[in-house]
Amino acid sequence: MSLEPHQIEIIGYCAAFLTTVAFLPQAIQSWKTRDLTGISLGMYSLFTVGVGLWLIYGLIIEKWPLILANALTFALALSILILKLRHTAK
Amino acid sequence: MSLEPHQIEIIGYCAAFLTTVAFLPQAIQSWKTRDLTGISLGMYSLFTVGVGLWLIYGLIIEKWPLILANALTFALALSILILKLRHTAK
Repeated sequence: MSLEPHQIEIIGYCAAFLTTVAFLPQAIQSWKTRDLTGISLGMYSLFTVGVGLWLIYGLIIEKWPLILANALTFALALSILILKLRHTAK
Repeated sequence: MSLEPHQIEIIGYCAAFLTTVAFLPQAIQSWKTRDLTGISLGMYSLFTVGVGLWLIYGLIIEKWPLILANALTFALALSILILKLRHTAK
């Protein structure tokens, strides 16, 4: 590729930004509608633990981009998981 | 922290594994039930583009862990996005 290093970095930052903020519209929709039947409990269980590990990993290696992005994603994923647990109990 | 470098790496690999495979139960549930009303179109639009950029980023810097994890997540997120677009048309 003929991209400059800073251009490659920008692609990485855009990717990180999008995959982090993506959970915001889902959290808002789930909060407002309380329609959680189509949301997978398995997905949000695995994902919340996974993002929690990313956060721990970021804290250990002391990389702020990892810490900030994963702290936000962790909070959003956990909110969706809690809504799922509350609103699909039989 | 008093962790060895290889122990820290294992935390990173566990994190990557969980956040990647997490989308599998969601894709399976959405495919089987066709219940997509609780799934946010905004989330899967932003997330699919974001993971697509992570994949491009991985390809440019030629890092196979990034390429493999994001290729799988991209395929799963795109499947959920397509199901959402098909099954919530008015």
